[in-house]
Amino acid sequence: MNRSELINQIRTKKNFLCVGLDPDIEKIPKFLIDEEEDPIYTFNTRIIDATAPFCVAFKPNTAFYEAYGLSGITSLEKTLKYIKANYPNHLLIADAKRGDIGNTSTMYAKAFFNRLDCDAITVAPYMGSDSVKPFLQFERKWAIVLGLTSNEGSANFQQLKVNGKDLYLTVIETCASWGTKENMMFVVGATKADMLDDIRKIIPEHFLLVPGVGAQGGSLQEVCKHGLNKDIGLLVNSSRAIIYASNGNDFDTKAGEEAKKMADEMSQFI
Amino acid sequence: MNRSELINQIRTKKNFLCVGLDPDIEKIPKFLIDEEEDPIYTFNTRIIDATAPFCVAFKPNTAFYEAYGLSGITSLEKTLKYIKANYPNHLLIADAKRGDIGNTSTMYAKAFFNRLDCDAITVAPYMGSDSVKPFLQFERKWAIVLGLTSNEGSANFQQLKVNGKDLYLTVIETCASWGTKENMMFVVGATKADMLDDIRKIIPEHFLLVPGVGAQGGSLQEVCKHGLNKDIGLLVNSSRAIIYASNGNDFDTKAGEEAKKMADEMSQFI
Repeated sequence: MNRSELINQIRTKKNFLCVGLDPDIEKIPKFLIDEEEDPIYTFNTRIIDATAPFCVAFKPNTAFYEAYGLSGITSLEKTLKYIKANYPNHLLIADAKRGDIGNTSTMYAKAFFNRLDCDAITVAPYMGSDSVKPFLQFERKWAIVLGLTSNEGSANFQQLKVNGKDLYLTVIETCASWGTKENMMFVVGATKADMLDDIRKIIPEHFLLVPGVGAQGGSLQEVCKHGLNKDIGLLVNSSRAIIYASNGNDFDTKAGEEAKKMADEMSQFI
Repeated sequence: MNRSELINQIRTKKNFLCVGLDPDIEKIPKFLIDEEEDPIYTFNTRIIDATAPFCVAFKPNTAFYEAYGLSGITSLEKTLKYIKANYPNHLLIADAKRGDIGNTSTMYAKAFFNRLDCDAITVAPYMGSDSVKPFLQFERKWAIVLGLTSNEGSANFQQLKVNGKDLYLTVIETCASWGTKENMMFVVGATKADMLDDIRKIIPEHFLLVPGVGAQGGSLQEVCKHGLNKDIGLLVNSSRAIIYASNGNDFDTKAGEEAKKMADEMSQFI
């Protein structure tokens, strides 16, 4: 999916919601585990069907699948295929946070973009240029680089001062120089909405993937106030607040309602 | 495996070699692909059997398996089991470079340490404390944090100046404060051997995992001169120079010879 197609989806659906598919076997409804052969896949497909009308992107975090070994990877690959087959206009993001030396990053890029046909993958920047650039060599595909994350530990290194400015600003500025607004986005944690102003000075046009709205405590109003640009330029993710909205057989309906609520809130900004 | 057991292995075998199991389907002997049901697994087991007498650790880079999807993950899990069953005294390192928000890192830690029974996993530090600490909660298990990597891109961020010193030194110092020499090591690229002096001032006792000797161009002499401590304190990795020593049916014998050559070179430092 390219940039103008993404913007078009956002304007048509009047939201910029990304639903995080992070299924935890301890948290999904128990009846699925008792009754279903692949409870994670069933959980996902029902969440996807219920939320697809109210979002423009899906983002499985690969850790939640890799934790269960082969059966988890099977659930992940089936989920990716299900989204591609049924919702080809939704941006499909593999939240894998990969990054390795050049030839290894190339293997990851081929795996996620070609074999699994994801539209985007999250990338860890610490290893620098040759760890990031291989993800930029694919038409209509995106590297989403970790800029400023929303977790407590983001203060440890991301907010250290380098030549008088925070490291994450240097990371964003340097990484942005390797790609374009057509093949690169940045992860920017919503719990630090005021930092968005500084980021927008450096990359006024790039899309930002904002985690942390909802369960992690960020405010949509703040994020929009500081992060929106003329093409919207935001994807706001919510995982737990949507996918665990209910524990009962109505878990998908409730997830859909929660997604709709967020999408409605977003519509005022479109 | 705990620290004294690792040191004991090194002193007994008189080497500190780690063999990187990074099988690339384009590079492994073609007859394996024609004849074997799981050529990567067969390749690995023959390399492992041939090199085990001359090394103390094995390090599969998970990218090389994940690139092939379910069949690759199957090969990886079979390889890990094979090593654990046949070479329980070798340190088993999953080179996965993971790092995510706290609860997600915990899932990774459980997957690699409990389910897959690896001894160690490589960890990307950019997301800070809550992304690293979950890997330190397991008895006899190790987090190996990326400090200074050996690739070209390490200059982009790792070598930026923070308060007058290189970022990688701050990363190493800060991460070291979260763990101990019993549950934490650091990746330190061998192509920058002179930087080892600065690192050893901060962490004189920790083990360092040194990639980049061999195909990536580092020198063992230099690494030892600057990196050895009273408990050796080094694991030096070689992947391509060993596992692709030959393309023929003698690939395992040649790999063993190459490993032995490196082990012999190391023995003078024990």
